[in-house]
Amino acid sequence: MTATDEDFSRHLSRWGTHSAKWDLLAKDLGENAIALSVADMEFVSCPEVREAIADAAALGAYGYTEVFDDFAEAATAWMTRRHGWSCEVEDVHFFPRVVQCVAALVDHVLPRDDRPVRVVTLDPAYSPLLEVCERAGTDLVRVPMRDTAVSASIDWEALEEALADADLLLWTNPHNPTGRIWSVDEQRRLAELLRECRALVLSDDIHCDFERPGGQRYSALARVAKDLWMSGRIVHCASPGKTFNIAGLEATAICVHGPLGADLEAEIGRAHV
Amino acid sequence: MTATDEDFSRHLSRWGTHSAKWDLLAKDLGENAIALSVADMEFVSCPEVREAIADAAALGAYGYTEVFDDFAEAATAWMTRRHGWSCEVEDVHFFPRVVQCVAALVDHVLPRDDRPVRVVTLDPAYSPLLEVCERAGTDLVRVPMRDTAVSASIDWEALEEALADADLLLWTNPHNPTGRIWSVDEQRRLAELLRECRALVLSDDIHCDFERPGGQRYSALARVAKDLWMSGRIVHCASPGKTFNIAGLEATAICVHGPLGADLEAEIGRAHV
Repeated sequence: MTATDEDFSRHLSRWGTHSAKWDLLAKDLGENAIALSVADMEFVSCPEVREAIADAAALGAYGYTEVFDDFAEAATAWMTRRHGWSCEVEDVHFFPRVVQCVAALVDHVLPRDDRPVRVVTLDPAYSPLLEVCERAGTDLVRVPMRDTAVSASIDWEALEEALADADLLLWTNPHNPTGRIWSVDEQRRLAELLRECRALVLSDDIHCDFERPGGQRYSALARVAKDLWMSGRIVHCASPGKTFNIAGLEATAICVHGPLGADLEAEIGRAHV
Repeated sequence: MTATDEDFSRHLSRWGTHSAKWDLLAKDLGENAIALSVADMEFVSCPEVREAIADAAALGAYGYTEVFDDFAEAATAWMTRRHGWSCEVEDVHFFPRVVQCVAALVDHVLPRDDRPVRVVTLDPAYSPLLEVCERAGTDLVRVPMRDTAVSASIDWEALEEALADADLLLWTNPHNPTGRIWSVDEQRRLAELLRECRALVLSDDIHCDFERPGGQRYSALARVAKDLWMSGRIVHCASPGKTFNIAGLEATAICVHGPLGADLEAEIGRAHV
């Protein structure tokens, strides 16, 4: 079974499927609404995914499951094959969603006694991640982007200033919500700034499989700045959710090298996610 | 389609299904192991459940879902039909698992400035709930049960003493792990103690559909002590997980009357569960 053109052209109605995008957010707009809110799609996933899910459903018993090595193996194999970069299997940690990883970092891993955790984000940004930081009482510094109506660019001076005393940079690649895929040059410039400070960077790359034909190609920050990856300064977030229209299944590969991985595993146990 | 005797007599192997009970906990015991660890089962769920899950799998798109009123309606209808008691639909709150509700209570809802949250539990108890309390830094008071080798009973004097200054009582009915279903008289006696203190009681009743033929029948504490329910002192936990062998699907109905419901909804948002 392979995906056919028909899979990408046949519209799938998701009304009446407990869909957050349709049954909740588009409810008051009527049945002719075109929902452009949540980033999931109105066509079916690829045959391999549909078959695997149907097989799990056919089992007939639905007891407690566990995450095994095949999750990390699938994640690293995909990253290697598609994007020419991956980490080791042991550097992959399972979280349902990126937001729970950010919560673990700002609620439990990064806090220290002398002052609030300082978080830097480009602005605009995906708001649930910022809400987690605000609820945790962090000092949240927003660096406004330039030219968002055209292609969006970074105010590098403002970013450098913000990073000087930061604990965490929230980075997204492709950028959410502008869709900008950062070039290697831009990420090299970011890496230079990161080498001048001590901030951890969480690179949320869950949309990285979406590249426009002929447009900017995606590169992981960890690939561009291997030294920062090796020193444990980059938390790389990957997920099949957007690519395969399975965001509701909640599986995210949180990748980090070094001792932070053990801290994150402890938080996974603590949060019972 | 209705369940047949065959559904309850045909053994279902769960090896190789990412099962926590088998592929993780029984792994080192070999393929002839009889796993008695996790409370999920080796036969298929009822046809109605299997059909509903197969239908969801057949949809082909697996985007973000939301919990709608049909969840609370199903929970209250079941409790009414099976157990002669239910709450109103608006008093039902969705959590994946009971442990996340306990975490919300001891981490965020109950803490106050002057001293740690005081939690009382019978001993033995389901350890993950106690671990959540310990991690939250609560003052955890264990009241040893009597005669656990025979049928298990409560040391009422010790329980009364422990409750005097308690914020939360962790109650399970049927009791986990002894399996004791508490009689109406026992629960009336508990209610008397609760009226003399101010502790909230979390009644974890997720095994309540399991009654032995001819044995003690189950009654919800909220049914036995309507005044405590109406005053918002009882958090009643119900779930289809054990009954239908769908614990891995993670759906729990947390029922409470009054303003605590809004606090729990805020924590559901905070925890991104």
